[in-house]
Amino acid sequence: MTHANTGRIQQHLEKMAEFTATPGEGTTRMSYSPQGQQAREYIKAQMHAAGLTVREDAIGNIFGKSAAQDPTLPSVMIGSHFDSVPNGGAFDGPAGVVMGLEIATLFQEQRLLPRYPLEVVALVEEEGASFGRGLLASSAIAGKVDAQELHRLQDSRGQSAAQCMAQVGFDADNVASVVRAPQTLKAFIELHIEQGPVLEQEALDVGLVDVIVGISQLVVTITGKAGHAGTTPMDRRHDALVAASRVIASVGDFARQAGEETVATVGKIQVLPNGANVIPSKVIFTVDIRSKQLDKLQQVLEQTRACIQQQAGAGIECRIEQPLLVEPTRLDAGIHGLLKKHSEALGLGHRTMVSGAGHDAMIFAGITNVGLVFVPSKDGLSHHPDEWTDYAQIQKGIDVIFQTVKELTEATSHDQ
Amino acid sequence: MTHANTGRIQQHLEKMAEFTATPGEGTTRMSYSPQGQQAREYIKAQMHAAGLTVREDAIGNIFGKSAAQDPTLPSVMIGSHFDSVPNGGAFDGPAGVVMGLEIATLFQEQRLLPRYPLEVVALVEEEGASFGRGLLASSAIAGKVDAQELHRLQDSRGQSAAQCMAQVGFDADNVASVVRAPQTLKAFIELHIEQGPVLEQEALDVGLVDVIVGISQLVVTITGKAGHAGTTPMDRRHDALVAASRVIASVGDFARQAGEETVATVGKIQVLPNGANVIPSKVIFTVDIRSKQLDKLQQVLEQTRACIQQQAGAGIECRIEQPLLVEPTRLDAGIHGLLKKHSEALGLGHRTMVSGAGHDAMIFAGITNVGLVFVPSKDGLSHHPDEWTDYAQIQKGIDVIFQTVKELTEATSHDQ
Repeated sequence: MTHANTGRIQQHLEKMAEFTATPGEGTTRMSYSPQGQQAREYIKAQMHAAGLTVREDAIGNIFGKSAAQDPTLPSVMIGSHFDSVPNGGAFDGPAGVVMGLEIATLFQEQRLLPRYPLEVVALVEEEGASFGRGLLASSAIAGKVDAQELHRLQDSRGQSAAQCMAQVGFDADNVASVVRAPQTLKAFIELHIEQGPVLEQEALDVGLVDVIVGISQLVVTITGKAGHAGTTPMDRRHDALVAASRVIASVGDFARQAGEETVATVGKIQVLPNGANVIPSKVIFTVDIRSKQLDKLQQVLEQTRACIQQQAGAGIECRIEQPLLVEPTRLDAGIHGLLKKHSEALGLGHRTMVSGAGHDAMIFAGITNVGLVFVPSKDGLSHHPDEWTDYAQIQKGIDVIFQTVKELTEATSHDQ
Repeated sequence: MTHANTGRIQQHLEKMAEFTATPGEGTTRMSYSPQGQQAREYIKAQMHAAGLTVREDAIGNIFGKSAAQDPTLPSVMIGSHFDSVPNGGAFDGPAGVVMGLEIATLFQEQRLLPRYPLEVVALVEEEGASFGRGLLASSAIAGKVDAQELHRLQDSRGQSAAQCMAQVGFDADNVASVVRAPQTLKAFIELHIEQGPVLEQEALDVGLVDVIVGISQLVVTITGKAGHAGTTPMDRRHDALVAASRVIASVGDFARQAGEETVATVGKIQVLPNGANVIPSKVIFTVDIRSKQLDKLQQVLEQTRACIQQQAGAGIECRIEQPLLVEPTRLDAGIHGLLKKHSEALGLGHRTMVSGAGHDAMIFAGITNVGLVFVPSKDGLSHHPDEWTDYAQIQKGIDVIFQTVKELTEATSHDQ
């Protein structure tokens, strides 16, 4: 049996890691940044080299489609995203993009002609690091993003998502054209690093995900009043940061109380005017809440909302936006069965598991049959410069998906 | 008796207000920014027009010195600073600079030749908004700043104070030349807006400050560990922002407990990496504590330090720097008496008061005899775009200082 090529996998991932705004301090690759554009050119070139027909949609997702015995049949789509968090790792996203490139290359090398087209996808804007909106690109493909939202979402410099897209030649106003009709897809399979400690601790090769946790993100704006830090008495202050701090110090406790691996995080905060001797007038921060049980997710959401509203009163206003609410997602049992069958045939250590992180696979589950394969994360670490997965471990994950995709596409050797 | 010219005062202040990086959203004028340079050129031109000899020191303070019957005698120095906080007002600082310009112009108009030279000063970097270090320029004049500190202090872009100075032609390495020997000064008098509600509420014209509160600023760095917001269980997190929030939510309570008008503020915060789905790895924030009683100041400082250290532990490190500690300052009784005498002679409503804000006058008190005059702040508001003092109110404050300075400089009419 032919395996994926570990050397090629390493080469792709090392090259992708070079496209970072913070060399030496991890991967910082915003979707529409110069580094995002460098990665884009690299991925397109590799798709071309693997014999795929390359296309970019209106918001910058890249698609490479193979020839097929019946090109009118729906695609078996594989891939992941190529954006990163600030100072993140080299594997979160790119490992799945490289899976797609490698499987396309294996099809080419082995002269496999699929009956259903194989379609490799490299997605933008999964992390939500630029605009506070995770899973943006896959949500657009699923028809859940309109142009208005792209004009409203802003990065920390105050530029809208639409402006950032326009600067590199994409067209937010045409986001409707990005929507993918369900009948054009037979399946979507993603490979991703686990970003947690389970596979490593249990010395397993692959995790076959059956449920992805539910996720909600809030954007909270607390508005008070600026004043001089020296001459404004404590009892006449409307300090937006003190109010925000009480919320930030509490959300973790709500998650702990909920249990069942529920988590809550404030990761991003902006303070205005942000001067050492000025009482903060406005604070904007995100709250990220995740749980595999919808009732626990809603419980923490309600406690967080109540805690925020408790801060409101004379001189303090609170506004809560909820740009993201995704319920826990059950993935396709049929594809899960195929992935399990091929893991066993390949002699790999495997287990069924829950994903604590959101993935584009979760959004694709709304429009097609989805599978998700995890490979181990060293020390369970992710969103960190030290994020690591051995190339040989990625190769095993790709092998499972390669066998599964061959079966799903009904590929036959071109030489036959 | 000739009064200061309200029209000129208005013209100067309106012109200075134009030099802002945030037109329509208040005054944002960092010392070494393009707007700081525009204000510099304006002030120098006005000093020249008032017949002063203009000099800039190595870090950018501007001095305009008059002719004198005995130029070897120490100067009677008057003025204030011309930097601002972000999105601050048009009066905090400039009102005192304009006082200096107006009094020099009155000397010129009235052909007054002082025995002791009159010296107008326009100071940089009082607010600490760029480098988290308040009263930087006056501290340098008092010999309390070395080149090493100027290389170490950084703005939010990571540029050192020394680099910012060099970019506009100043020389941090030569900061020793800025030091002013006590024997070159007879007195220093500052005019400043009150930045509090007392004068307005009591319908008074001027506040004659006898004590300035003690001030301490801390810069706190809390270092935890980044991680994925979805897959890192709550009990394995080292979240720097949660730790910082507990401190921020507490410091105000420490000040309230201390009483005696003690205040404490966290105004500036930086979170890394600042991504919506990344656990914060590092938070840097300032703590500003003020009290008219040294023991209360020290009490809140110690409670704040203890609260910060309580956050430290497995996976969380805390570092505390204290770039600023100024004890409460008693100003010169002799100058206070002169200011009181002339307020009465002018028929102005006046009172003796404490200053809740730090001022350059506080630092000058270490090297010469100092007076400080407050004029009313509308609604007690400061460090805010709506900061306001009527020009006629500023004129009254200038009149008091003009009469006092005539007496201190032993000015006589040139025509006599």
